[in-house]
Amino acid sequence: MAQRMRLPGLLGELAAEFAGTMILILFGVGVVAQVVAGGIGDHDSIAWAWGLGVTLGVYVAARISGAHLNPAVTLALAVFKGFSWRKVMPYVLAQTAGAFIAALIVRWNYTEVLGAFDPGHTIKSQGVFSTLPGNGTLPVGMWGGFRDQIIGTAILLFVILALTDIRSTPPLANLAPVVIGLLVVAIGMAWGTDAGYAINPARDFGPRLASYITGYGTAWRDQYGDLYFWVPIVGPLIGGLVGAGLYQALIGRFLPKEEPPEPGRVPTPADAETVKAGQ
Amino acid sequence: MAQRMRLPGLLGELAAEFAGTMILILFGVGVVAQVVAGGIGDHDSIAWAWGLGVTLGVYVAARISGAHLNPAVTLALAVFKGFSWRKVMPYVLAQTAGAFIAALIVRWNYTEVLGAFDPGHTIKSQGVFSTLPGNGTLPVGMWGGFRDQIIGTAILLFVILALTDIRSTPPLANLAPVVIGLLVVAIGMAWGTDAGYAINPARDFGPRLASYITGYGTAWRDQYGDLYFWVPIVGPLIGGLVGAGLYQALIGRFLPKEEPPEPGRVPTPADAETVKAGQ
Amino acid sequence: MAQRMRLPGLLGELAAEFAGTMILILFGVGVVAQVVAGGIGDHDSIAWAWGLGVTLGVYVAARISGAHLNPAVTLALAVFKGFSWRKVMPYVLAQTAGAFIAALIVRWNYTEVLGAFDPGHTIKSQGVFSTLPGNGTLPVGMWGGFRDQIIGTAILLFVILALTDIRSTPPLANLAPVVIGLLVVAIGMAWGTDAGYAINPARDFGPRLASYITGYGTAWRDQYGDLYFWVPIVGPLIGGLVGAGLYQALIGRFLPKEEPPEPGRVPTPADAETVKAGQ
Amino acid sequence: MAQRMRLPGLLGELAAEFAGTMILILFGVGVVAQVVAGGIGDHDSIAWAWGLGVTLGVYVAARISGAHLNPAVTLALAVFKGFSWRKVMPYVLAQTAGAFIAALIVRWNYTEVLGAFDPGHTIKSQGVFSTLPGNGTLPVGMWGGFRDQIIGTAILLFVILALTDIRSTPPLANLAPVVIGLLVVAIGMAWGTDAGYAINPARDFGPRLASYITGYGTAWRDQYGDLYFWVPIVGPLIGGLVGAGLYQALIGRFLPKEEPPEPGRVPTPADAETVKAGQ
Repeated sequence: MAQRMRLPGLLGELAAEFAGTMILILFGVGVVAQVVAGGIGDHDSIAWAWGLGVTLGVYVAARISGAHLNPAVTLALAVFKGFSWRKVMPYVLAQTAGAFIAALIVRWNYTEVLGAFDPGHTIKSQGVFSTLPGNGTLPVGMWGGFRDQIIGTAILLFVILALTDIRSTPPLANLAPVVIGLLVVAIGMAWGTDAGYAINPARDFGPRLASYITGYGTAWRDQYGDLYFWVPIVGPLIGGLVGAGLYQALIGRFLPKEEPPEPGRVPTPADAETVKAGQ
Repeated sequence: MAQRMRLPGLLGELAAEFAGTMILILFGVGVVAQVVAGGIGDHDSIAWAWGLGVTLGVYVAARISGAHLNPAVTLALAVFKGFSWRKVMPYVLAQTAGAFIAALIVRWNYTEVLGAFDPGHTIKSQGVFSTLPGNGTLPVGMWGGFRDQIIGTAILLFVILALTDIRSTPPLANLAPVVIGLLVVAIGMAWGTDAGYAINPARDFGPRLASYITGYGTAWRDQYGDLYFWVPIVGPLIGGLVGAGLYQALIGRFLPKEEPPEPGRVPTPADAETVKAGQ
Repeated sequence: MAQRMRLPGLLGELAAEFAGTMILILFGVGVVAQVVAGGIGDHDSIAWAWGLGVTLGVYVAARISGAHLNPAVTLALAVFKGFSWRKVMPYVLAQTAGAFIAALIVRWNYTEVLGAFDPGHTIKSQGVFSTLPGNGTLPVGMWGGFRDQIIGTAILLFVILALTDIRSTPPLANLAPVVIGLLVVAIGMAWGTDAGYAINPARDFGPRLASYITGYGTAWRDQYGDLYFWVPIVGPLIGGLVGAGLYQALIGRFLPKEEPPEPGRVPTPADAETVKAGQ
Repeated sequence: MAQRMRLPGLLGELAAEFAGTMILILFGVGVVAQVVAGGIGDHDSIAWAWGLGVTLGVYVAARISGAHLNPAVTLALAVFKGFSWRKVMPYVLAQTAGAFIAALIVRWNYTEVLGAFDPGHTIKSQGVFSTLPGNGTLPVGMWGGFRDQIIGTAILLFVILALTDIRSTPPLANLAPVVIGLLVVAIGMAWGTDAGYAINPARDFGPRLASYITGYGTAWRDQYGDLYFWVPIVGPLIGGLVGAGLYQALIGRFLPKEEPPEPGRVPTPADAETVKAGQ
């Protein structure tokens, strides 16, 4: 609580969510542009740079806002961890704005390279900015992508809650952001086939909008012509709740209610942060 | 002991083993499906995502059950570290159930992609779920796979005991799960040729059963027609005992019996967990 | 301050900046030589080894000089964090000298391999030592590279300040150098298309000079014949200021002025270092 | 000292050096066998698994022997850090024996795969076990390899001393072995072209001998017919001294003689280990 008194109020929290998500997307959309349009690197580069982008974005925002950086996280924390409902929409808007601005910066910096690779700015390079079912090529449809986004985001929230629960064994020494990044690396490697692992409505909608206003008429539909943009919004919101609920059912309820003071137990700054991140 | 009093009893431990192994296999079988059937990534992606899956599964279960996630670990800890024999079979069943459910989820999510890649659900994509000698293509037979599984699991247990022995220099700050994951990454890169590094009976049998009941008639035999499913069960159980025994002989017996209190030594929560993980 | 009294004075600081930057460039220029001329590895190897080179160089210099290893860092810390202006030029010279010597060592060790790959020492292997717009092949010109270097270095400084700000949640246990290295890995994967992510004037100019005096007549111009060497000097210096300023505006000003003593808060050696690194 | 009294004497130290080097080589030679003969993975897999093998080997041996695992490390610590000269030869023999046994295990486990890839056991698969100039294919000769081994091992020792010097900013929380492994990953990516980065006489000679007694007549000479086996022995021993000397000259002498007690400074178990590792 005394901790909380030093904190900067909602404006600072929104600036932190904005900046953290911006850093995340500068790496995330940046690496897809580099691989797809620049021809440098491969799918593993995408998995690593997205994951590291999460790590770095979380470090940017963690102290001030708890570093949600993802509306699916914000919603799940509101439902299961008492995060203030009146902050949910402001957080979501700040996250989406951060992702939007970051995507514009990538769009600007890779103008020449995107133009050379896909002069018409078509679905060929749409995937740099937003996700498609089966990544635009595999035989997965809209509903397959929807199912995938629910499952993938459920995994994300289940493990995030495990990694930030101070009643459990979370990484200490302020290193949880590194392991959360590794979680996203692993999701990219194992759960990226059906729908490009958006698992974050802000990550998908912000850059999608940025691509639309900078010349991508293909932004809202998938390769089959179906309206698709809602899938990586609604799927993750549902999946996050599923994952957080399962964490409570399988792990959370078996942990002690509260950590009793232990002799020789040294509270560290990480504790406070960890609580915050999982608040 | 007081520590132990706060713990949730066998039900919680089984839920933790179930959930931790489920998370492990969601990444492990997931990444092989993505690489083999989805054509995204390569063998290094498999090594990384399996290893990171271990890291994340261990974080999920560590506080409650010690995060064995592997019958070969449970057996070796029962023989060498006093883990309760009456819990061995329940742990093994919970681990196998977690692996089974996770494989069903992967099977469901990758339905379209598996169907496009291998419409008959044959040995061509059997390796997504369970291991084959020589990964189905190299000239290694059943007994070569058996030898390999003994050696590979011996390495696994030898190093796990080193990484969780508080009398030695284990990673602190609750970071042992990260290094244990890196151990599995390295095993995947160096010891995956002869038999696909199952090194875990639950990892292999659970998904094998899941593939069988969802259309894979090839589940129980190898590419030569030999009954193979027992190899990644029996080999790891033997290998784990060999590795744990060698650790005791070469390292464990040279370490002090018990850590004497040191002036200025600050016990941390990691200590308790480390003891537990290696209990 | 008492901390500071034990420090070795400017000579030691310059030796540390020299040695740290030398280690960084031994890995950075070394890996490009291995990949481009030796044909071993690919772009991801370059991203990883550059990033790990940063980690290792920072460990070498951190205690003594704060491990800037980069004139853009030194300048930004002088403008925003009170780093002594009279040390700026000596630091920059020491960094450039370290990069220069390291590049000569790589040039010497890879003599045969560079000679076999590019006997005339032309622009074909110039990229081993210094950067080119679009990495010499993509349709990016001088001004595209300039824009890219401003943005890339802004990202670098923004995140470095976040990772070393003890008022925030920096990695503890002396592990910030690892995460700073991961930052550079991610920049290499996502921001290396337009101008080869120099993001460090010493990294680019030192090896460029080393290549020039050892037979590369192509050192100063790009593939279009434009004088280019100034771009990865001026771009990063500007970008670093932009990034550091944005950090102050979006994050820094919302953090508490000073960390008040907390009951149970244990100062660690990491704290002192972290302050120093971000000084 | 009291610390030292609890330690197990020379027998335990030799067992630890044997076991630690064995683990290192089980991964190191194992991954080359998997990539070269099994066709699984690529050069980056080799760099990662060697580096992770170092990390894991160091964890195995660190508490008991200080985890040299390398005669070049043992010699440099004897010359520069007061490591007991009478232990030098026993350590070197234990390291070489560990590497030899590990290589035999790899040779046995990969019998079928090596036989299929190179039935005559020729120089084609010699590189699985021991190093060759230019990795057997690039135009680097014996003396180029010798130069490379001096430089590569100088880098290794320079950075190891930086990472284990408690007067500096070494990784705490018992995580130095992870960063030392990353150092070897980076050497593999940047300094592996000219001579396969042996940088460790035991790593090279033990497996070379194991290959010779199991059918490789090509063990002692390079692709030009020159006697080569001495290069990765003598080069690293010289290089280690060069690197350790340079560390003292550029960094070590600018660090305080001894860490004075600081108020609020909490000694951790990591301190003792770090001192030991760099003893």
